[in-house]
Amino acid sequence: MHAYRSHTCADLNTAHVGQEVRLSGWVHRVRDHGGVLFIDLRDHYGITQVIADGDSAAFADIEKVRAEWVVRIDGRVKARDASLVNPKLSTGEIEVYATGLTVLGAADELPMPVFGDVDYPEETRLTYRFLDLRREKLHRNMMLRSNVVRSMRQRMWDQGFTEFQTPIITASSPEGARDFLVPSRLHPGKFYALPQAPQQFKQLIMVAGFDRYFQIAPCFRDEDPRADRSPTDFYQLDIEMSFVEQEDVFAAVQPVVQGIFEEFAPGKKVYSDWTRIAYRDALKWYGSDKPDLRNPIRMQDVSDHFRGSGFAIFAKLLEQEGNEVRAIPAPKGPSGEPVGRKFCDRMNAFAQQQGLPGMGYIFWREAEDGSGMEAAGPLAKNIGPERTEAIRLQLGLEKGDAAFFLGGKPETFEAIAGRARNVIGEELGLTEKDCFKFAWIVDFPMYEKTDDGKIDFSHNPFSMPQGGLEALQGNPLDVYAYQYDLACNGYELISGGIRNHKPEIMYRAFELAGYPNSEVDKRFGGMVKAFKYGAPPHGGCAAGIDRIVMLLADEPNIREVIMFPMNQRAEDMLMNAPSDPTNEQLRELRLRVVPKDS
Amino acid sequence: MHAYRSHTCADLNTAHVGQEVRLSGWVHRVRDHGGVLFIDLRDHYGITQVIADGDSAAFADIEKVRAEWVVRIDGRVKARDASLVNPKLSTGEIEVYATGLTVLGAADELPMPVFGDVDYPEETRLTYRFLDLRREKLHRNMMLRSNVVRSMRQRMWDQGFTEFQTPIITASSPEGARDFLVPSRLHPGKFYALPQAPQQFKQLIMVAGFDRYFQIAPCFRDEDPRADRSPTDFYQLDIEMSFVEQEDVFAAVQPVVQGIFEEFAPGKKVYSDWTRIAYRDALKWYGSDKPDLRNPIRMQDVSDHFRGSGFAIFAKLLEQEGNEVRAIPAPKGPSGEPVGRKFCDRMNAFAQQQGLPGMGYIFWREAEDGSGMEAAGPLAKNIGPERTEAIRLQLGLEKGDAAFFLGGKPETFEAIAGRARNVIGEELGLTEKDCFKFAWIVDFPMYEKTDDGKIDFSHNPFSMPQGGLEALQGNPLDVYAYQYDLACNGYELISGGIRNHKPEIMYRAFELAGYPNSEVDKRFGGMVKAFKYGAPPHGGCAAGIDRIVMLLADEPNIREVIMFPMNQRAEDMLMNAPSDPTNEQLRELRLRVVPKDS
Repeated sequence: MHAYRSHTCADLNTAHVGQEVRLSGWVHRVRDHGGVLFIDLRDHYGITQVIADGDSAAFADIEKVRAEWVVRIDGRVKARDASLVNPKLSTGEIEVYATGLTVLGAADELPMPVFGDVDYPEETRLTYRFLDLRREKLHRNMMLRSNVVRSMRQRMWDQGFTEFQTPIITASSPEGARDFLVPSRLHPGKFYALPQAPQQFKQLIMVAGFDRYFQIAPCFRDEDPRADRSPTDFYQLDIEMSFVEQEDVFAAVQPVVQGIFEEFAPGKKVYSDWTRIAYRDALKWYGSDKPDLRNPIRMQDVSDHFRGSGFAIFAKLLEQEGNEVRAIPAPKGPSGEPVGRKFCDRMNAFAQQQGLPGMGYIFWREAEDGSGMEAAGPLAKNIGPERTEAIRLQLGLEKGDAAFFLGGKPETFEAIAGRARNVIGEELGLTEKDCFKFAWIVDFPMYEKTDDGKIDFSHNPFSMPQGGLEALQGNPLDVYAYQYDLACNGYELISGGIRNHKPEIMYRAFELAGYPNSEVDKRFGGMVKAFKYGAPPHGGCAAGIDRIVMLLADEPNIREVIMFPMNQRAEDMLMNAPSDPTNEQLRELRLRVVPKDS
Repeated sequence: MHAYRSHTCADLNTAHVGQEVRLSGWVHRVRDHGGVLFIDLRDHYGITQVIADGDSAAFADIEKVRAEWVVRIDGRVKARDASLVNPKLSTGEIEVYATGLTVLGAADELPMPVFGDVDYPEETRLTYRFLDLRREKLHRNMMLRSNVVRSMRQRMWDQGFTEFQTPIITASSPEGARDFLVPSRLHPGKFYALPQAPQQFKQLIMVAGFDRYFQIAPCFRDEDPRADRSPTDFYQLDIEMSFVEQEDVFAAVQPVVQGIFEEFAPGKKVYSDWTRIAYRDALKWYGSDKPDLRNPIRMQDVSDHFRGSGFAIFAKLLEQEGNEVRAIPAPKGPSGEPVGRKFCDRMNAFAQQQGLPGMGYIFWREAEDGSGMEAAGPLAKNIGPERTEAIRLQLGLEKGDAAFFLGGKPETFEAIAGRARNVIGEELGLTEKDCFKFAWIVDFPMYEKTDDGKIDFSHNPFSMPQGGLEALQGNPLDVYAYQYDLACNGYELISGGIRNHKPEIMYRAFELAGYPNSEVDKRFGGMVKAFKYGAPPHGGCAAGIDRIVMLLADEPNIREVIMFPMNQRAEDMLMNAPSDPTNEQLRELRLRVVPKDS
């Protein structure tokens, strides 16, 4: 017999009754039922119930074991009484009568239990990650992650992509975030950087003549921690294709993502009609460039109804160019409960908490005199019944529904309107549950005006401007890029673009953002040089793997889907990182740490 | 029609004759055959011949294109004349008559050509890696590597392993080599390290209850460059299993490696009888712990024949304990050509070049008087015919064969004897060609005596000593570890062990090597702590992926199987790394570079 096991803890069933077996695993739970001892023995695969009574040679040994000891059990498979069958376990029809027990690994008293669902402080969980990972939910999350990544790979290969590994110790790739640096010992005083993304490398792979690249790629950004972001490294499904337009990328990626969600979100609806929404429209309609389309609310421009109206605040605002009034329609939810003043006041307070002066509203209720519907709320009074009715008709609202209004420069209130839309959708029960809804956000502006009035890239400087070189002769703020995001349930899952592969267009694009050619050569020299020796048109995207797994696992925190995460202060509690270097290490690197107060 | 192509450059055949098609790719070669222009148009998939004559609207444009321009061709598929069919190309039966050409990406004059097999200095090749990668051999190597990794993954999943990603920004893991450090910005003065291997993490994964882990894992070692080693990062197939003994690991790994070699070394024989050789025997028989078993020569101890013999040097040597005389048998090769004095003298000179005083030899030739066989060479004379004949019989040699002799402490000559064995096998044609032969090297000594007489771990400190705690009470130099390597054709492909999962044995093992418990806790604290909370017996190994691909691609240099390798000075010529940090970066990290002469 094998030294440790003849079967796993998920293998045994009634077909094995009478057999002598050997199992190894962790003591999940020990119970003493008056002279009969029960062990739930757990391994990676499942749980098997082990029993021993006073007649068993193993009884005395079993009395000594404690939770989370690793033991080997020799025993005989017995059928359980029908009344004791546990249909939740694959081994629920049998138990193993122990004839011997060997301790393979004892356990000190546990700082946190594995059995049970008690919450523990994150500090404890991370310091004893190896215990935390034994818990059912985390174990399941890790397996989910691994299976998602495996399926992604399979689906990418099936689509004709090839995986290549790009360097991890490489050059600084200024892409917006901060680099992690790696001091060079062979070239003291010089530093490598860890890649923020394999952006330049994947483009070089296209220039090198490979056609369809992908990689499950580790990416490194020295960013301040956030719940949905690891403070050090994260993984993306990185994709690049040659001889493609935007539509080709969409056509390649959608089946992969759609397939992953269908495979790993059983019981949830995965919508396959992926709409396209222009960036500008996403902000206008949803107050977000990653709209949650499970929420049916679409905001609308209702400026015309307020222009010259009796509601002086809006009327006055609208006299200034660039100002608008937008409405958030709030139809009653599936319960049929009318949206009344109380809810409206609550939303008004929400807007105030978020830093706005407030949100005007109208709600349509059963008229008090029984004559039908009437519009209520201070706004309705100020603008009068005709305008109010025109608004109702535009928004398609009915009795029992409401609408909220925000005015000013859209940039100043769009994000808050978006958050209000989320709350309204959630609270009125409008937002669909248990589903995933996707949209490609397209036509990102290439440039934006910074706070100090300069022109800068609004997103990815490597994207091809729509209209090519010609488009870069006019007003930069009118230029759209071939750049796109995939939004899902309010998250950005993918970001990508068709790349600017022509050196002359790239130099011009950077020039508009204030970078002279010499700066482009300095910062992106490797890639720009490559473009001068026969570059194909190419494009691609990158999908955030951690975030996809978070969505599929329905976890709010990225640390729940990473095997060994850092804490919020970017510390590894288990391995004790970062830590002090030795003097010899510093000497070899010719570095000195500057004291804090110097 | 698609903006760039209706087909790839490998798609078209006689079935497409008459069709209007669109192709995009690189101009591999342009030829002008007296008013008819030929382009070999190349993409990732293949090559298609494009032609244009004076009647073609594209003629003038085609006249302008140069090698490595990226172009789009519109044209019509024509069958080639039977005499012009190229059976080497999938598209060799057709050509495309061009009716239009669009330049998608022009190319400056090339620093190195893509077409043709001319050798270029490595400096040029690495600086223009994107051109070098377009060459057929490198393109093929990269595809091979990707397919090997893919197949490894598939085979590991098929064996019930799950892939998990372990941290890349983590703690220093003192495993013999130098760490790459990463300064922390949030904790200035402290450093992370890049993992030399995920050793501790994979063991933690076992302690966390996952059963069979693998990972295609990037590993980082700040080592001085060597041809078969990348100076920064390399990849290993990292494996760990719970509840296993050495044999279980072998049984899991062999089908994966055997399968990979059979899949990717077509036409080469992949031996499936993987022998086991004790570490000590490998050194004795082959002069190497990674013997090349394609070479049938096995060295033997022939001390007895020289003890008290007339060959004073050896006789004297053997009076001292620990000295030995070993023979390298050198039977004539398949050509039947006798091994004569000339070859023997050459090998003697080889040994001298390697730093030995020389190598004695005997060779057996046709007796000059026609009486049959006689032994020749100075050694034979000195020890006389009886001893000579006894040696011949022990070594199983015959007329036309030879043997070489080395004496002293085995450690002083074993490695050179091993190299001599390689040369002999190669030069006499004894070493089998076009095959792969594997052997597990087992029973590594746990400890060794260092030059200054101390006891230290000879290999992996994490391995379980054979005999457990008890074995650690005697002479450390007598302790073997459950540790193993896989040798193939003279390379070490895999290294692994059954781990020491018991804290008390681990503390004792380190104590013997001079490390107090506190040092163990400090250096391997995360793992040792985990072992105190229920650790399963576990073991595994790691296979060098770069080296496996080198073997399969038959390349002598690791840079030929890495997409973007560093040069020998650990510099990235293409991306310009390492480079100077900005003052702001140094300030954020609170680091100062110490001037060279301080």
